[in-house]
Amino acid sequence: METVERQDPVVYGTHPGPLTAEQIDFYDKNGFLVLPAYFNADEVARYRDEALRAAVALAATERPEVVREPGGEIVRSVFAIHTLNETFGTLCRTPRLADAARQILGGDVAIHQSRINFKPGFHGKEFSWHSDFETWHVEDGMPRMRAVSCSVILSENNEFNGPLMLVPGSHRTYLTCVGKTPKDHYKLSLRKQEYGVPSDEALKELVDRGGLESFKGPAGSVLFFDCNTMHGSGSNISPFPRNNVFFVYNSVENALVEPFGGTEPRPEFIAHRNAEPLG
Amino acid sequence: METVERQDPVVYGTHPGPLTAEQIDFYDKNGFLVLPAYFNADEVARYRDEALRAAVALAATERPEVVREPGGEIVRSVFAIHTLNETFGTLCRTPRLADAARQILGGDVAIHQSRINFKPGFHGKEFSWHSDFETWHVEDGMPRMRAVSCSVILSENNEFNGPLMLVPGSHRTYLTCVGKTPKDHYKLSLRKQEYGVPSDEALKELVDRGGLESFKGPAGSVLFFDCNTMHGSGSNISPFPRNNVFFVYNSVENALVEPFGGTEPRPEFIAHRNAEPLG
Repeated sequence: METVERQDPVVYGTHPGPLTAEQIDFYDKNGFLVLPAYFNADEVARYRDEALRAAVALAATERPEVVREPGGEIVRSVFAIHTLNETFGTLCRTPRLADAARQILGGDVAIHQSRINFKPGFHGKEFSWHSDFETWHVEDGMPRMRAVSCSVILSENNEFNGPLMLVPGSHRTYLTCVGKTPKDHYKLSLRKQEYGVPSDEALKELVDRGGLESFKGPAGSVLFFDCNTMHGSGSNISPFPRNNVFFVYNSVENALVEPFGGTEPRPEFIAHRNAEPLG
Repeated sequence: METVERQDPVVYGTHPGPLTAEQIDFYDKNGFLVLPAYFNADEVARYRDEALRAAVALAATERPEVVREPGGEIVRSVFAIHTLNETFGTLCRTPRLADAARQILGGDVAIHQSRINFKPGFHGKEFSWHSDFETWHVEDGMPRMRAVSCSVILSENNEFNGPLMLVPGSHRTYLTCVGKTPKDHYKLSLRKQEYGVPSDEALKELVDRGGLESFKGPAGSVLFFDCNTMHGSGSNISPFPRNNVFFVYNSVENALVEPFGGTEPRPEFIAHRNAEPLG
């Protein structure tokens, strides 16, 4: 594993948007930003109901967008939800989210990936430490670090149900694991990440420098995090499910090319190669 | 699975000890009590160093008291540490711990079980929900609910490293799983509990009533919890190890008899059948 200092900006230009200068500064420094209760209770109840309804309907199909828990039939994620479902197609375009992404990335954006994540109560599995950019660069052909992930909490994330943990400041370092990725890796890695994860030593060094933060909050809370921020989550043995919607906004100036790892591109529903700029 | 209301007291009599009336009331109501930084930094540093020293020495042996992580050689626990190591033999007798146990249990106590637990950073496994009494009654022949567990934190327990979670008030309900325990179950269950665990529905009902609490605090913090309090812990993917010493104090009026599940008694190092009252 090789360690490289980040070459790209974190915040691009001065596009207008809903975030304050302090929030932008925090994001630039830490690689993430939490907006507690960004959507109100009524709004988020609608999204939660729709997410469950859509998941139940799609779970009955053999669609590849539906990913299940390791060793079980429980639905873990539904990908491309913004194309499959009108409510989430609208949500990813709402100015509170899309303009914040434009503000960070300095202009027009497209959706690189979207999904609903269900971490069930009692039996939610852990997800190892990783930065998304490593995969998106190597397997999807994303050229530069100019993408931001957005997670909207649909049910309370608390200390008991395996909340997302992030390493503040880790977005400034790129850990390369290029060349190790097996063919069709994505079929496994959507369930359980095993390749392209940092070594214990590399992770410890990042945490020694930046500490750890977890993304907790009531339903309606929103997290923006940089494509290179190191994150992971522990298991969930609590009775509380942890459900989130997840959108990745990519700059239109950062459109996908051939994968840098030399493998076949992943399917369109995981990495939208032909994404239109959001209107 | 059957649910039975607890028949035994939680706090027995009025034996003098270091706990205040408010602390005793809290314990009686919730089934646990946290004493933050009960030992000071110098004291706990000595215990931590000795625990690591003892574990390294014992890991090189084939002693049955040494239990390793599932699928690995990493030491997870060392049992009977109060008999194997003088420092911990002294610690379990220190009045701050032993008199608190006497105060709760109403008189003389003996050690039913002791161990050091190491939950390693990065790869610490989860431990399913369970109440200890179920096992101690069925597999060890502990007659009544008259035992208290004591956990001393050797390295900070925080929200990131899979702290012990407890269900307040769960000590008032006994969930029986009698008759399911396979022979030599202990060899597996010390690594990963799979039998004698509550159903998702039963656990959800307990949590709906009592909520969840986690045992977090700096090194030197102490937790007392009732033998029938439901507890478990998630995985630890953080770089921070989580190391504790664990003593189970049993009333001398609650000495072990033949196991109620009809199986052979577990080995002496897991359940001290011939324990002397602590002097």
